[in-house]
Amino acid sequence: MKDEAEQRRSKVVLAAGMFDLLHYGHLRFLEEAKKAGGGGARLIVVVARDKTVEARKGIKPVMPEAQRRILVEALKPVDEALLGFEDLNVPEVLRAVKPDIVAVGYDQDDIYDEVKRIIEEGGLKVEVIRIGRFGPRELGSSSEIKRRVVEGWRRPGR
Amino acid sequence: MKDEAEQRRSKVVLAAGMFDLLHYGHLRFLEEAKKAGGGGARLIVVVARDKTVEARKGIKPVMPEAQRRILVEALKPVDEALLGFEDLNVPEVLRAVKPDIVAVGYDQDDIYDEVKRIIEEGGLKVEVIRIGRFGPRELGSSSEIKRRVVEGWRRPGR
Repeated sequence: MKDEAEQRRSKVVLAAGMFDLLHYGHLRFLEEAKKAGGGGARLIVVVARDKTVEARKGIKPVMPEAQRRILVEALKPVDEALLGFEDLNVPEVLRAVKPDIVAVGYDQDDIYDEVKRIIEEGGLKVEVIRIGRFGPRELGSSSEIKRRVVEGWRRPGR
Repeated sequence: MKDEAEQRRSKVVLAAGMFDLLHYGHLRFLEEAKKAGGGGARLIVVVARDKTVEARKGIKPVMPEAQRRILVEALKPVDEALLGFEDLNVPEVLRAVKPDIVAVGYDQDDIYDEVKRIIEEGGLKVEVIRIGRFGPRELGSSSEIKRRVVEGWRRPGR
């Protein structure tokens, strides 16, 4: 058990995403996000709701939100995973999680811009960092994994 | 740190599988496998090599073996994940891991029969248990997830 002084020092890092078809790039993203908070950091992950994904990306996740949340929370670097608000209400998320750092992935330009704007408008003391892309390009995103599944499916003998 | 007596008592559970397109059913399988070893159990997972999967199932995994291994080892219930031998040499695996319990999934009849036979032939003190299926049927196996990906892909607007 940590003493109170240590708990006060330890930073909260927030990361968000869909995390559909969980892959190596997701794990590396979350590991780097936690590392950015230094020793004793807590990593809290907001997993996008099915409806949010449909509204923003026009696709339905393969895995339902409840299962995506449980799988993300089962990863060693993750202290807690929460389902997002259905309208991806960024101010609400920041109020609820109270992060010191928000870690944004290489493919999350929309979240980056939105979080930056809200922090500036609200004069919040929150650092926003970008995390790079990990792993080979062809397996670093859910859409590329889907493409591989589809291509494999068409080949005979599958 | 555990004392020596406790380490001697704690059981080693072995589970094996492909773990391609990691899903909720995989996690629940691994959680139940670990639970079967009781308090302080160590869960060691053997992740099938790409070549083993190709030879036995006639399919190529979507995710390469190195990434499948890392992702499995990143799950909280897993203490260690190893790549298997290319020819799925069950006696070699049992000699290397020295499990007290081998946990076999609901869809692993071939592994169950093979492990049972080898344990009986060798007079080994290893318990073999079956773990049930978890989660909704349509998301409980990699092939069903692939089917969903393919069906989604064909729909317009994806």
